[in-house]
Amino acid sequence: MTIRLIGYAFSGPVLRVIICLKELGLPYELEPPASYQSLKDEDYIANKHPFGKMPVLFDGGFRITESRPICRYLVSKYQGKHNDTILIPNDVHNAGLVDQFISYELSYYDPPISKLFYQEKVAKRFLNEDPDPEIIKQAREELAKVLDVYEKLLEGKEYLNGEYSLADLVHCPSTYYVYGIVTTHSGLWDSRPNVKNWWNRVYNRDVIKKSLEESKSFWENNENI
Amino acid sequence: MTIRLIGYAFSGPVLRVIICLKELGLPYELEPPASYQSLKDEDYIANKHPFGKMPVLFDGGFRITESRPICRYLVSKYQGKHNDTILIPNDVHNAGLVDQFISYELSYYDPPISKLFYQEKVAKRFLNEDPDPEIIKQAREELAKVLDVYEKLLEGKEYLNGEYSLADLVHCPSTYYVYGIVTTHSGLWDSRPNVKNWWNRVYNRDVIKKSLEESKSFWENNENI
Ligand SMILES: N[C@@H](CCC(=O)N[C@@H](CS)C(=O)NCC(=O)O)C(=O)O
Ligand SMILES: N[C@@H](CCC(=O)N[C@@H](CS)C(=O)NCC(=O)O)C(=O)O
Repeated sequence: MTIRLIGYAFSGPVLRVIICLKELGLPYELEPPASYQSLKDEDYIANKHPFGKMPVLFDGGFRITESRPICRYLVSKYQGKHNDTILIPNDVHNAGLVDQFISYELSYYDPPISKLFYQEKVAKRFLNEDPDPEIIKQAREELAKVLDVYEKLLEGKEYLNGEYSLADLVHCPSTYYVYGIVTTHSGLWDSRPNVKNWWNRVYNRDVIKKSLEESKSFWENNENI
Repeated sequence: MTIRLIGYAFSGPVLRVIICLKELGLPYELEPPASYQSLKDEDYIANKHPFGKMPVLFDGGFRITESRPICRYLVSKYQGKHNDTILIPNDVHNAGLVDQFISYELSYYDPPISKLFYQEKVAKRFLNEDPDPEIIKQAREELAKVLDVYEKLLEGKEYLNGEYSLADLVHCPSTYYVYGIVTTHSGLWDSRPNVKNWWNRVYNRDVIKKSLEESKSFWENNENI
């Protein structure tokens, strides 16, 4: 059964699914949409994503949208089939905690990072707007507080839930975008030893490093889409 | 094993977990925090929720936070043990779609509703601020577009994923707060037949109606917390 992933590889939510597919050892075909505008076409809305977003995954005739649900679906269906990587543990309590950390990423970690990345890269690139120093300042303060919490959460642990899991994986796109591509804010991570070591550990997984670096060229060069 | 739920019953994320517990037929004890401020106390941060939020669930000695992960955990562990209610189907594809609809609620449905409820109830009640008509107007427009999408998603279906599921359940607190408590915006739902019928169907489940109505008095009376 062919897995088709609709989206641009440099988009954070799409990259999240790409990393998950690679971690599970699943072959897939990436299908970039015709353009950003095409996501709002009647055909895209009717047959791909009703809210006009990417990613969308087709697993044979089965269609599913939304990056985190797609990852959980892939794990439920394919974990252990192509390799030994465990992204969600079998134990119901540990699985619950992985899910909880995924919610921390979505609820607390991602919002300030997305603001920073929007200001530093997206606004300039797509809207020709200059970054707003006040928004950047506030986002940095918000992120610093979140990373203080992560510093404690990671005390004595190699990964968020002890062992590497989908919880760490979901943090990769946004972290890399600001830490590895914007780079001027990387001190927020590096000044917190547990956070710094955690990110180095996660980043240095072969699958993660390769997937993230492949997305870099888009943001560094002025490729058009 | 005793289940303890930390939170106020009138808070949306807490109410989401309460409904889930009741749907699964699970007895629990509700423990309201001392005050909103106490959520930021060192003790609460260290032993309840690291980001100072509610709900927090203790299942015996096991602690888990974040409303949607708590619900998924309760379903994984207890579904089918106390009654026949199915909130997440066993089939991996249907389970994936339930998860997808939960993500639609979180990503698209909740944000404009939360803005409306904040303007109409929270700002007045907690901050003594008057509602901002411009924000209300924008939130209504955003919500109208989202409900147009739901109108199509619900075409020919009784519930979001065909059968009643956790996907419908997670929509209840915010929908009720604006539809049933604020009431002035209920036309947004009632003017769309599929959406209207869906909400009536969901609301009229005994467990849902009772849980929601129990939360009403707080928002109608000027009870202090
Ligand atoms: N909750 C969604 C968010 C998807 C999302 O926002 N995708 C962006 C990727 S750049 C998108 O499609 N944006 C295009 C648009 O909103 O028009 C997920 O996690 O998949
Ligand atoms: N993502 C969380 C959100 C929890 C949340 O925002 N809870 C509110 C309930 S009113 C809260 O604790 N607010 C208190 C505060 O932020 O200080 C969940 O779904 O459980």
